[in-house]
Amino acid sequence: MANRTEISELGEFGLIDRLTKDLKPANASTRYGVGDDCAVLDYQDREVLVTTDMLMEGVHFDLTYVPMKHLGYKSAMVNISDIYAMNGTPRQMTVSIALSKRFSVEDIEQLYEGILLACRQNGVDLVGGDTTSSLTGLAISITCIGEAEKGKAVYRNGAGQNDLICVSGNLGAAYMGLQLLEREKAVFNSTRHDDGEPFAPDFSGREYLLERQLKPEARGDIIRQLREAGIQPTSMMDISDGLSSELMHLCRQSHTGCSVYQERIPIDYQTAVMAEEFNMDVYTCALNGGEDYELLFTVPLTDHDKVIQLKDVKLIGHMTRPELGCHLVTRSGQEVELKAQGWTSNL
Amino acid sequence: MANRTEISELGEFGLIDRLTKDLKPANASTRYGVGDDCAVLDYQDREVLVTTDMLMEGVHFDLTYVPMKHLGYKSAMVNISDIYAMNGTPRQMTVSIALSKRFSVEDIEQLYEGILLACRQNGVDLVGGDTTSSLTGLAISITCIGEAEKGKAVYRNGAGQNDLICVSGNLGAAYMGLQLLEREKAVFNSTRHDDGEPFAPDFSGREYLLERQLKPEARGDIIRQLREAGIQPTSMMDISDGLSSELMHLCRQSHTGCSVYQERIPIDYQTAVMAEEFNMDVYTCALNGGEDYELLFTVPLTDHDKVIQLKDVKLIGHMTRPELGCHLVTRSGQEVELKAQGWTSNL
Repeated sequence: MANRTEISELGEFGLIDRLTKDLKPANASTRYGVGDDCAVLDYQDREVLVTTDMLMEGVHFDLTYVPMKHLGYKSAMVNISDIYAMNGTPRQMTVSIALSKRFSVEDIEQLYEGILLACRQNGVDLVGGDTTSSLTGLAISITCIGEAEKGKAVYRNGAGQNDLICVSGNLGAAYMGLQLLEREKAVFNSTRHDDGEPFAPDFSGREYLLERQLKPEARGDIIRQLREAGIQPTSMMDISDGLSSELMHLCRQSHTGCSVYQERIPIDYQTAVMAEEFNMDVYTCALNGGEDYELLFTVPLTDHDKVIQLKDVKLIGHMTRPELGCHLVTRSGQEVELKAQGWTSNL
Repeated sequence: MANRTEISELGEFGLIDRLTKDLKPANASTRYGVGDDCAVLDYQDREVLVTTDMLMEGVHFDLTYVPMKHLGYKSAMVNISDIYAMNGTPRQMTVSIALSKRFSVEDIEQLYEGILLACRQNGVDLVGGDTTSSLTGLAISITCIGEAEKGKAVYRNGAGQNDLICVSGNLGAAYMGLQLLEREKAVFNSTRHDDGEPFAPDFSGREYLLERQLKPEARGDIIRQLREAGIQPTSMMDISDGLSSELMHLCRQSHTGCSVYQERIPIDYQTAVMAEEFNMDVYTCALNGGEDYELLFTVPLTDHDKVIQLKDVKLIGHMTRPELGCHLVTRSGQEVELKAQGWTSNL
């Protein structure tokens, strides 16, 4: 009888490692394959960046509270974000969808409207795809292609010891937005007015958190600022699974350790208020909550004066020798080892 | 209340037309988007070809009779075939899969083995993808990227009146292979030996038909022959939905009509025998059966002497003025109008 290993035994990264460990490029044009935000292909004058994502209903999104247009927008944006995370410029996109009879043309138009809005805002052309049927639910697969100047693509493995660690925007907001949506869904499903009508969800004053969850923005503006300031990051990725987990990726692939300072982690006021309401530790949310799609990058110490001039970028720590490991320095000065929580992304 | 149009009202092409009719490229690097086998991107010295496909369990494949390795091989091959169909050279591939708990690591390894075999045979590097979970069944999304010399990509819209129409290999075999598999599946499900054991399927002497269905080959060899012979086709596509339907695509996009000769349509001996056994018309199978992945192309009349030298290529007719429509000339000399049967591909 054949061996049977449960996929859960390996986990996603273990499975990918196992499936791809023997891959060897056969073409000179394959500069970088599996293992980063994008594959990098060399077609003479420019490097071509390619990234792809697959999203399944019931696993990555819940149509109870995600409108189709937002779903399209977010699906496109997370791929565009991967191109920026390589220091690239997104150029083209292909979109494949499989859908059951439950969906109407208008539903899919809404989905495309969201996709095309994200494309337009980032100068991306939709250039192909596939539309097919599914026995159950909706599946979306998106591939985004971009370009980078030769030698200017930024990988996860280039950080040096003592490099400064920076993040854009603020963290944990998308995660709090998700908590809020799930709470309101539970209320909606279980409570009724006296006349039998369900309570309408109340999101007033929380719009920012919902927007961070439902309509994330890829940070092309940060990439442009870096270029204008003449800063070439040594490593970079987007924060989709939470800061802790992404920092550990950068450190592992760059062979460094890191120290980040709790008090420097950027958190929006609404995120803090909401965390208190949910009786959650806001730093845990910021470190382990996913889907912020902010950029995490490192720059050489010599770029310190330039990087602190950037708008909406915060310096949160520095890389260290690998044997020092990955640490969070708390407000009280304690060093706590960073752990990647097995965060399950909602998109 | 919002309008609701059923997707079935538009059909697949209608839906795609509707979704993409307003697309306008924003980048000089977008040479050709939706509407052909591949998107063509211009990155300086070479044109980059990108194609993508999505395959859903229960819709595009039936794991009762398709082994995982064959499924992987075929999924990759149909994308590689699209690159050849543009006169390109496939270079890279990304593979996304979503799978339910029903599948083990070994299952997915088998799938990848098939994908990688197809890649190796065609010099393609797997450079990325996504692996995720699904609530039900298996979904596969593949993107293939290739290159073409500038100005050498072949579209569907370049055929001229009087151009010669050629096909590679033979037609209808993949369709007969599918009929055979479905018959044996029905027998397997409904009949039992006296001891309760099911009958083992009997495919002896039918291996070629099964192979054409389960393990199709993309015709890179034909592309190489064309190059060596110095032939630049005026239009080309691969035959995935059946010859009739593909001829009508070429004619519509090239603004021509066509005449093809029944007696010249290449049919393998086994296909003919099997059709007789099933009491089917073998020409109907060859014209409307899908999934042969042979190449259909046109060349200028002046290339006649070169094209008849090509190995495994047959001249089946010629393009005509558009007002003459698309016709099959039967053995008895009758002209029958070609119709695209609403063929539903099995992969």
